[in-house]
Formats: sequence, C-alpha cells, structure tokens
Amino acid sequence: MTKQLTVAIVGATGAVGTKMREQLYKRNFPIKNIKFLASAKSAGKDIEFGGNTYKIEEATPEAFEGVDVALFSAGGSVSEKLAPEAVKRGAVVIDNTSHFRMHPEVPLVVPEVNREALKEHKGIIANPNCSTIQMVVALQPIREKLGLTKVVVSTYQAVSGSGIAAIEELRTQSAEWDKGKDVEANVLPVKSEQKHYPIARNLLPQIDVFTENGFTKEEMKMINETKKIMGMPNLSVAATCVRVPVVNGHSESVYIEVEKEANVEDIFAILKDAPGVVLQDDINNQVYPMPLFTEGEDPVFVGRIRQDLDNKKGFHLWVVADNLLKGAALNSIQIAEAMLEDNLL
Amino acid sequence: MTKQLTVAIVGATGAVGTKMREQLYKRNFPIKNIKFLASAKSAGKDIEFGGNTYKIEEATPEAFEGVDVALFSAGGSVSEKLAPEAVKRGAVVIDNTSHFRMHPEVPLVVPEVNREALKEHKGIIANPNCSTIQMVVALQPIREKLGLTKVVVSTYQAVSGSGIAAIEELRTQSAEWDKGKDVEANVLPVKSEQKHYPIARNLLPQIDVFTENGFTKEEMKMINETKKIMGMPNLSVAATCVRVPVVNGHSESVYIEVEKEANVEDIFAILKDAPGVVLQDDINNQVYPMPLFTEGEDPVFVGRIRQDLDNKKGFHLWVVADNLLKGAALNSIQIAEAMLEDNLL
Repeated sequence: MTKQLTVAIVGATGAVGTKMREQLYKRNFPIKNIKFLASAKSAGKDIEFGGNTYKIEEATPEAFEGVDVALFSAGGSVSEKLAPEAVKRGAVVIDNTSHFRMHPEVPLVVPEVNREALKEHKGIIANPNCSTIQMVVALQPIREKLGLTKVVVSTYQAVSGSGIAAIEELRTQSAEWDKGKDVEANVLPVKSEQKHYPIARNLLPQIDVFTENGFTKEEMKMINETKKIMGMPNLSVAATCVRVPVVNGHSESVYIEVEKEANVEDIFAILKDAPGVVLQDDINNQVYPMPLFTEGEDPVFVGRIRQDLDNKKGFHLWVVADNLLKGAALNSIQIAEAMLEDNLL
Repeated sequence: MTKQLTVAIVGATGAVGTKMREQLYKRNFPIKNIKFLASAKSAGKDIEFGGNTYKIEEATPEAFEGVDVALFSAGGSVSEKLAPEAVKRGAVVIDNTSHFRMHPEVPLVVPEVNREALKEHKGIIANPNCSTIQMVVALQPIREKLGLTKVVVSTYQAVSGSGIAAIEELRTQSAEWDKGKDVEANVLPVKSEQKHYPIARNLLPQIDVFTENGFTKEEMKMINETKKIMGMPNLSVAATCVRVPVVNGHSESVYIEVEKEANVEDIFAILKDAPGVVLQDDINNQVYPMPLFTEGEDPVFVGRIRQDLDNKKGFHLWVVADNLLKGAALNSIQIAEAMLEDNLL
C-alpha cells in the first residue's frame, strides 16, 4: 500500500493554488491529512477540496508540525520566511515561487528532465518558472539525441500567469471593448510597478521587472533556469517574454541549434515518444498547438516544427502548455509523486 | 507648383483601401482627379473621400484610361488581371498584394530602405508584406552601420491584417467571452481554408496557407521579401508568424546577428536618427512599443533593445507598427510621393 502523507498548501486560493487542489484530488495523491495555510487575513475562511469544506489556517511556523509535504505558492517573501521553518519541522517543501530556484543547494526540477536531481535535496525543491518548464520538456529529448547549442525563445504568455486579478482585468477590459486604450489598467504588466497598461487588444513586452542588463526578470528566469534544469551552464539561451491577451496557456516560438545534423522527421520521431510531450503537427490538416485548446491539459504540445532554411542544424518549434498545470501546479505535484516513487518522501 | 495627378484606388472599401483614402487626403497628395474602382457588385455604391461622396466605378481595363497612379489592394487575382491593363494605359501601378512582389522585374520597395529601386520600374511597383516592411525599416539602418548576417523573427500579428471580417470576428468572439473555445469561427486563420479557429483568447500559429517546406506563405514572404528589399540574397532569415487577438498593430520579436561588434548604445544611436523609426526604449520608465498605442501612428517603433548574453554580435529588438499604415496604405502612398519627387511619375 502506498504511504499516506500529510500535505499542506500555502496560498491555496490563488490561481496556482486552486489548480494544486484540483490536481492533488484528480491524481489521487495519497493524502492522510491536508491543511490549507494562508495569511492571518484569510485564516478562518472556508476552502473546498474534493467536495469537502476545510477551514484555512494561519501560516505560522508551528502550522507545519507533522506535515510531510508543503506546497508553497504564495509569493517569494512567504516562501523565504516559512519554507525553512517547514523544513526545520521535517516537511519537504516544493516551492512554486522564484525565491530558491537559483540557490545552489536547491534542486530545480522538471521530472521529465532532471528527476535525479531530487536525490540531492536538502528539504526544499524549487518548481521552475512556468514558461521555462514547458520549453525544457520539449527540448530535453531533442538534446539527448542531437545535442543542443543555442536557444532563442519568444514567448506569448497568458494573463493567468500573473494571477486571478490579471484574468479579471482582461475580462473587464474586453467587455469595455469600445474604450480602446482608455480602459482602466491596474494590474499588468506588474502590479507593484508605477505604470499599468491595458492587456485587452494589446501586448505587453514586459513580464516581471527589468534587470540591469535590459532583460526582464522573467527573461532571466528562462535563461538561468533552463541552464540549471538541463545542467548546461554554457548553453546559449536568450528569451523575449511578452504578455498576450489570452486567459490561460503559454505559447513559445523557439529557435534551436543542435550539434548533429538532422531533419524534421528526426525531430518528429524524437518528440513522438518523449515523456510529457504531445506532438501536434499536421499542417495539411491545420493541426498545431493553440492555447485555447490546451487549457486543462496536462502535456506540453509541440508543433510547427521546421528546419531552418539556412542552417541544417537549426530548427523552429511552437510549444504550448497550460501554464497553471504543467507550468506550475501539475509539475509541483509530479515532483511530489516522483519523490514518493523514489522513496524520497 | 507640384504636378497634379489622376489617382485610382482599386479595393477602396477594404481595411487597407480605407486607410489609403485617409492617407491620400491627410498627406495632401496632389490629386487632380480620383476614382474608386471595384467589382461590378460594388459599382454604383457611394464612397467617401475628403468629406465628399464619390460613386464607385467598375474596375474594367478601360477604367484606367487617363490614370497616372493606380493603387491596388483588392487581392492578388484582381492585381494579376488588371495591373497590366492599367500599365498598358499609361498608369503606374503600386500594388499592395503579394502577386508581383517576387517578380524579378518588379521593384519591391520600402522608401526608407531601397528607394533607388523605383528607378528600375516597368510600370508596376510592389508594396511589401506588412510584417516585412516594419522589420526592414528597423534593420536597414543597423545593417548600414554594422552589417547583418542573421535574422530570426517571431511575429505577433493583429487581425486587421486579415481584413475587416477578421476584425469583426474578434469583436464578436470577445463579446461571447463565456463561450470559450465554442465561439463561432468563420474567418481565421485563413478564410479559404477548411478549418477555422477562434482568435479571441487564443493564438493562431498560421497566417496564410502552408507551403511544402512547412513554413506558411506569410513566413516565406517575410523571408524572401526581406532578402529582396535589402538586396541581400544570402542573408539568413527565418520567421514564425502568429496571429494574436489584437485589433491593429503588428509586433515582432527580432533576433539579429551583425558583422561588427557593437553594444546597445551603438544600436540606440543608430536608431535614434533612422528614417521612419521612433526609438521607444526607456525601461526605467516602462517605455516600450505596444500595438494598442501604435494604432494610427506613421513610424515604426523599436524598443526592448538588448545585446545577446552569449554573442556580442547578437541583438534582440521589439518592433511594432500600424500594419494598415506603414505596413500597407502609408507605404504605398510614400512610394507614390517618392516617385513624384524623383520625377518618376
């Protein structure tokens, strides 16, 4: 019989936290007890799980007593403060925020890519950035067969990646269609930034704040996390991250260069059997991945595969996944499942 | 005194034709007579120009008698049939369709880039594809100073590029928000194709039909037209073209490699004084190009300029322009203006 675990979710009411609850239930994760933790403000409120109603408890250090796995998705500062407290009390933390991702002692894991890194954990495992996860799931099988030297990605990221308030903002602005650029904007591109711009009928070439080199933090996450997850510190990676008026489902136009000469059929064959990947590439029947049809789906969808016309080692891919599922909640649960299987929990 | 010309517009009621009328009037193009030509079906209907009402005439070969400049934007088959008839009758044709663009005797012109090619014309001048125009306006000044060896572009193209019916479809689907993927779709990605998909809340990684090499026609236009306009047959160019739920304004994430080592300040200095370009790059104040704010504007806006972190000769740009203006109607009128100035009309 499978071991039964006590699970805690920190930030269970957010866009990702809601999906974590759904996934735990849907995937039949072996739960002995479950608790939902949040700030004092939300403590005492009701929350649904598997058809039952639970009370949200305050996320204090003591709340982690007896917890086996704690799933964090309540912002970097909450993880910074409470993840070590949970570990101190014997819990394994799977953290969906960016706070610990680049810490040298914290494994950053996508099970299809670097499951073995879980063995090195010291209590905290980081769940990568949403747009990074789906890309490395698609690239790892190609890299294994053909090598990989260069990645240039342009993203088309859904508003759900910025939380429930951003989804609501897109909905409200869409309803105010005729106002055009005069619609109210309070959330995107970044809640804490000075300026906010409409997302309906618009594109925002800013996700997260800017860093000194001119790339945004989101772009640097894709660059640095890809290298860490794939264990390729010298891989050439560049990213341009753009928010688009799509509710859910991140899309990526990815240009790669591989080491061995190959053709499109080779890439097809590789991706057809790749874990976590669904090949959706039949242009004669207009079959290619689209975010609207990817919502609620577990896999990473890859299509529009083309060999570069000037470089036989260059390929172009179109990669789409549900950013709240494989990009966040699902990957977190898959980490927990992998750890269970590997007797790490 | 400037020469006064007799101008004909073929396809004056479409998304581009409407902008052609506006631009001719707004830019005070020296018009002696103007006539509006369309299929027999539309002939006799009223059309507005500069506050006056005109009758649409049927686009027969004879209708071009006495016409100095004929602006075509009524589809490739109309241009194929009638452009030679217009030329036969002494008109210069500026054709916005793709029909003649790659013809070796037809100049494909963006005045900021290859104005001198107009001198070689034999009656027909082709106006390039919308997404190509804005890209070459941004790249030409960089190429002149630093050389250019490689271009990888991912586009974010507005529905207006597919005509008025596509704009209406996005509007209708947005109003039907709650229906999600079940909204009706009849126009996009390509009216004549078998399958149609919603564009609201979605992305369509197909613009125009597919070609044998797996790239779409739109992608091949960007690839081939860029080489022709810039006069660089050996330039490495790749494109991934994606339709996004934006009404108007095409955006592009462009990765380039140049020949001479340079830094971001060099690119800033080059683009600051470049013809037809507005540098919109002040990340400390969240200033970058966005399509919603580019609607109705003449220039090509460039921002998010970054040096690649692995290749000192690599740069990333974000390029946005009004696809109906610089991408179509405005560039056509600018071609006519350049020809007037250069005594070619």
